Amino acid sequence: MNHLPKLKIAVVGAGRIGKIHAETIARRVPQAELAGVADVVEAAARETAVQYDVPYTTDYHEFLHDSHIDAIAICSATHTHTQIIQEAAAAGKHIFCEKPIDHDLKKIDAALTAVAQANIKFQVGFNRRFDANFRKVRQMITEGKIGQPHILRITSRDPAPPPIAYIKVSGGIFLDMTIHDFDMARYLIGSEVEELFVAAGVMVDPAIGKAGDLDTAVITLKFTNGVIGTIDNSRQAVYGYDQRVEVFGEKGMVAVGNNTPDTHIYANADGIHSAKPLYFFLERYMDSYIAEMQAFVEAVVTDKEPPVGGQDGRIPVVMGLAARKSWEENRPVRLSEISPT
Amino acid sequence: MNHLPKLKIAVVGAGRIGKIHAETIARRVPQAELAGVADVVEAAARETAVQYDVPYTTDYHEFLHDSHIDAIAICSATHTHTQIIQEAAAAGKHIFCEKPIDHDLKKIDAALTAVAQANIKFQVGFNRRFDANFRKVRQMITEGKIGQPHILRITSRDPAPPPIAYIKVSGGIFLDMTIHDFDMARYLIGSEVEELFVAAGVMVDPAIGKAGDLDTAVITLKFTNGVIGTIDNSRQAVYGYDQRVEVFGEKGMVAVGNNTPDTHIYANADGIHSAKPLYFFLERYMDSYIAEMQAFVEAVVTDKEPPVGGQDGRIPVVMGLAARKSWEENRPVRLSEISPT
Amino acid sequence: MNHLPKLKIAVVGAGRIGKIHAETIARRVPQAELAGVADVVEAAARETAVQYDVPYTTDYHEFLHDSHIDAIAICSATHTHTQIIQEAAAAGKHIFCEKPIDHDLKKIDAALTAVAQANIKFQVGFNRRFDANFRKVRQMITEGKIGQPHILRITSRDPAPPPIAYIKVSGGIFLDMTIHDFDMARYLIGSEVEELFVAAGVMVDPAIGKAGDLDTAVITLKFTNGVIGTIDNSRQAVYGYDQRVEVFGEKGMVAVGNNTPDTHIYANADGIHSAKPLYFFLERYMDSYIAEMQAFVEAVVTDKEPPVGGQDGRIPVVMGLAARKSWEENRPVRLSEISPT
Amino acid sequence: MNHLPKLKIAVVGAGRIGKIHAETIARRVPQAELAGVADVVEAAARETAVQYDVPYTTDYHEFLHDSHIDAIAICSATHTHTQIIQEAAAAGKHIFCEKPIDHDLKKIDAALTAVAQANIKFQVGFNRRFDANFRKVRQMITEGKIGQPHILRITSRDPAPPPIAYIKVSGGIFLDMTIHDFDMARYLIGSEVEELFVAAGVMVDPAIGKAGDLDTAVITLKFTNGVIGTIDNSRQAVYGYDQRVEVFGEKGMVAVGNNTPDTHIYANADGIHSAKPLYFFLERYMDSYIAEMQAFVEAVVTDKEPPVGGQDGRIPVVMGLAARKSWEENRPVRLSEISPT
Repeated sequence: MNHLPKLKIAVVGAGRIGKIHAETIARRVPQAELAGVADVVEAAARETAVQYDVPYTTDYHEFLHDSHIDAIAICSATHTHTQIIQEAAAAGKHIFCEKPIDHDLKKIDAALTAVAQANIKFQVGFNRRFDANFRKVRQMITEGKIGQPHILRITSRDPAPPPIAYIKVSGGIFLDMTIHDFDMARYLIGSEVEELFVAAGVMVDPAIGKAGDLDTAVITLKFTNGVIGTIDNSRQAVYGYDQRVEVFGEKGMVAVGNNTPDTHIYANADGIHSAKPLYFFLERYMDSYIAEMQAFVEAVVTDKEPPVGGQDGRIPVVMGLAARKSWEENRPVRLSEISPT
Repeated sequence: MNHLPKLKIAVVGAGRIGKIHAETIARRVPQAELAGVADVVEAAARETAVQYDVPYTTDYHEFLHDSHIDAIAICSATHTHTQIIQEAAAAGKHIFCEKPIDHDLKKIDAALTAVAQANIKFQVGFNRRFDANFRKVRQMITEGKIGQPHILRITSRDPAPPPIAYIKVSGGIFLDMTIHDFDMARYLIGSEVEELFVAAGVMVDPAIGKAGDLDTAVITLKFTNGVIGTIDNSRQAVYGYDQRVEVFGEKGMVAVGNNTPDTHIYANADGIHSAKPLYFFLERYMDSYIAEMQAFVEAVVTDKEPPVGGQDGRIPVVMGLAARKSWEENRPVRLSEISPT
Repeated sequence: MNHLPKLKIAVVGAGRIGKIHAETIARRVPQAELAGVADVVEAAARETAVQYDVPYTTDYHEFLHDSHIDAIAICSATHTHTQIIQEAAAAGKHIFCEKPIDHDLKKIDAALTAVAQANIKFQVGFNRRFDANFRKVRQMITEGKIGQPHILRITSRDPAPPPIAYIKVSGGIFLDMTIHDFDMARYLIGSEVEELFVAAGVMVDPAIGKAGDLDTAVITLKFTNGVIGTIDNSRQAVYGYDQRVEVFGEKGMVAVGNNTPDTHIYANADGIHSAKPLYFFLERYMDSYIAEMQAFVEAVVTDKEPPVGGQDGRIPVVMGLAARKSWEENRPVRLSEISPT
Repeated sequence: MNHLPKLKIAVVGAGRIGKIHAETIARRVPQAELAGVADVVEAAARETAVQYDVPYTTDYHEFLHDSHIDAIAICSATHTHTQIIQEAAAAGKHIFCEKPIDHDLKKIDAALTAVAQANIKFQVGFNRRFDANFRKVRQMITEGKIGQPHILRITSRDPAPPPIAYIKVSGGIFLDMTIHDFDMARYLIGSEVEELFVAAGVMVDPAIGKAGDLDTAVITLKFTNGVIGTIDNSRQAVYGYDQRVEVFGEKGMVAVGNNTPDTHIYANADGIHSAKPLYFFLERYMDSYIAEMQAFVEAVVTDKEPPVGGQDGRIPVVMGLAARKSWEENRPVRLSEISPT
């Protein structure tokens, strides 16, 4: 039996992802304890807090001043992240922060500086790294099963586009959606991208274009170790959330397909039929949310480096900004061209 | 938010399956609350109880006398089931009972009589009915997707045989292992088996034969609605737990395959490779344990008939006895030939 | 380059299967030459003969008297097989004979005696042994990949039943359809069946029952080496010709699925869809017809034993008769109970 | 029965692909007749000719002067194609020409002009269009099954690189290997590419780089109808010939995978294993060679436009030249930048 004290974590932001982390911390990570829920909307904070019988507040600063709280999970709106990070770091709280840290590199750098100056752990919420499929791909690469990787392919398509109102504050497809794939590319290959090229368009909904964004994109990545990667994104795959990866190398290839709600095969006079992929990220990645929180808690408790650190949060933002530039200028863009402005 | 009082359930028997139900009740069924753990071995009861901060005892009668406890989950040794059922029924506790109820029809009938005379809910732990794959098959059949079923095929193979000591008290392969498949057959087809024929042998380990049991079997089932079924069992599939079902009918066929830990495909100079099935029932059926307990709790709370009742617990035992008789006499045996002795 | 003289083969019977062998001999087996076509219906003989610019006749005896002809391929109605075999053997012609040799064991034995007394090669047309899928299964077994086999499963379902007129002269499902599966069972396991048990019914079409036949059957096989097998047959799988095999053993399992016209996967809002199996035996087994004829020609040319001999033709007929008896008497029947009458 | 006179076709060039077309014409296309074989190496011409009992020559002009010959199939070295085309066109012979027509656009244009001035049929040997998998994809797109296409993905990887000597005269990876994929992209999407971008490298064998070529490439295609495509090529996939396509659109996605020699699945203690793809183009595309020749013959006999015409032969060469330019200049290149020099 484990008699170590549990890590007390307060959740800041009780929206969709905040609720997931609250449940995970309260029920699924044995070493963690939910210490409270904050949200600027009192009803939201209360609803989640009551469920687990923990305190709630509309002012997260209360948690920062509470010496019984060890860590906070930042799940609030993206533009609030860096301020909370700086305050929490100053208060000596360990930080789990949802992706993206911010859309602005200057703000990110200020936050990461604050983290570096505090004696705390900091982890960014790139949950897909903790998914069983992608872990297996990474594991097989590090075990040398495919030898030196040559080509990476990531397919990442949402089942349906978000509301236009969301699109407008999302930072654009590259910072909102592709950012997960940028992280995945770095994670799987274990090398940095030095240049990328984007071909993209508005094919799903003209309203997305009117909002200044794109809905379909193919991004070519050139890694420093020579690997060439492609990411293809669409805001709308009518058959559901399409999350596949393939890495091809000198000694073989490893690929992962979608997860489905069941394994049924139905054969009738029209053909052979099977289940669509799990609908969207809540269904598809629930286990990875648990695993990433377990990893965060373990890193804090054992005083190890969290598996997804500050640079892991910053670099995909650089890639997103480079992608937008590549599309605007129709040319390959080097990541070194992107700097805080 | 749900403000209904939670159903307080005590677990009797803190072995492997008891621990699963304790965790499920404590953490995964929002409407339930773990009320205590009993085991004749004090250390076993204590270990599980401490984990969830609940009382424990070596004498389950304490729970039967405790008016705050609504229900018990019987997870103790099979031969103790019917007595506990009778006592719990007399005490007015709702009962969830692990399979099989007993190996002896007379004892089963006495227990079911006690249940019938009490105003309680009674559910038997045939968890596989709550598995997403098999639910899908049943759903497609009831929706008429395959029309009238003609042929049923169940493949059910364990990854490794249990210890010989367990074999000796297991009731034999038909009451220990095939019993799940007998239940599955009835569940999927929605009709009763009237006759069965067994071909079987000792192929995996001669020690199993010396212990008076079989390790490999093929059972042919004839249903009252005309469907013909086969079950094939082995105590040892070296590639892992093999749990497949296929139902063929006038308008089509539906089949479910195994679940795997991930969806990876690995291609190298030797061939194309993918993951083995999830290892055994704990890995494979964890979600079904949660779903069956949710169903039990819901049946009690909403005063509905539990989905797996007393006859659902009794009939597979009859089938197991008929199977053994068929093997011994090398002839088809009708279920009507089997009666309490 | 191969300058050996080609084996001259005349085809007797220009129906569906006769045309296939004519094409195969004329075009696809380099070592063979089509020497003529006989059919009691002159138009049928002519149509095929003209296509390859070879002689035709309504009286196959002409071919038996023609010293330039080396072999005959018997593709006529089943009841004519044994007489032609005896005459051809007497004439010293090598014989390829379609399955079944006959429905009557006495007639089969007379024919096989004639073959044994002549210095000729004799091969029976169990073409499925030459299919790439089933060859692979057999190869893996003989290589020891699954160790000692324990369980065999054969699924063999036609896309649609034949006309009732055909049913009436077919010899019944066991001699017409299952006979291929009986051969497959023997081929794959490399051991003889000593006892079988049948569960069967009329589920597809009552007219088949009125004609005295069955349309759905599950046959359990017990082999002398301990393997237990099941065959499941249906006269109508609405999704097409379903031809699968699985062999499970101590070290693993090997299975083969259906062949499809293409490998497409189509994903839309309704699900994931793929191609049905190839429609029926002409589409599915065309390559095996070529391979079996190549094997026959090679056996003759190199003076080796053909891979499917007289006993391979006889035993499945015994199994078919035993299967019918098992169904009629609802009991396991030993093959030793069946003898020429 | 078909009593139309057969189309008499002479094969020019008796190398690997010439032998395939000779066999196809002689044996597999009922409406065609092999009229002769030419090769500058007499032994090569003779070997193939003897096999089918037809005349041979070292000077193909003999066939051009032979009024009994209707058509020629040009299978000689690439640099000889355009001269033979011009001569054959002048002689009024229908022409089937292997890909690529030439590496030089001026020579191609001269040849296509000659073809245009003659009253003949001209077809280029992009055989993959006649493959069942790719035909199915095209068919589903034209039937509207995926609505407007958005993203195209082609994976095309050889099992092993050709000899360095071949690499040196091949025209480079884009004109030798990718050219098939360029054709496939145009065929599947039914629209022209207007711009492309290449990321590529030497990853398989440094000797390929020393020979001035690349062995690994990812090409992004922008079509005039908005579709974005990617092709990924490697000269060496250790698991065999990898030939896959996926088209994603507004209403769904269709993809085709590899063909395998059999459908076996082997499960053992190490995992689940299946067959590698068919080894290389001879195994993989044999049926497509037959189908393309049938299409050519049918086009001539019925006086229709062949399905793969002169522009279909020219444009992929333009794309190959644009690809090389894109790689050299590391920028997107428009096809309109490429003109005869």
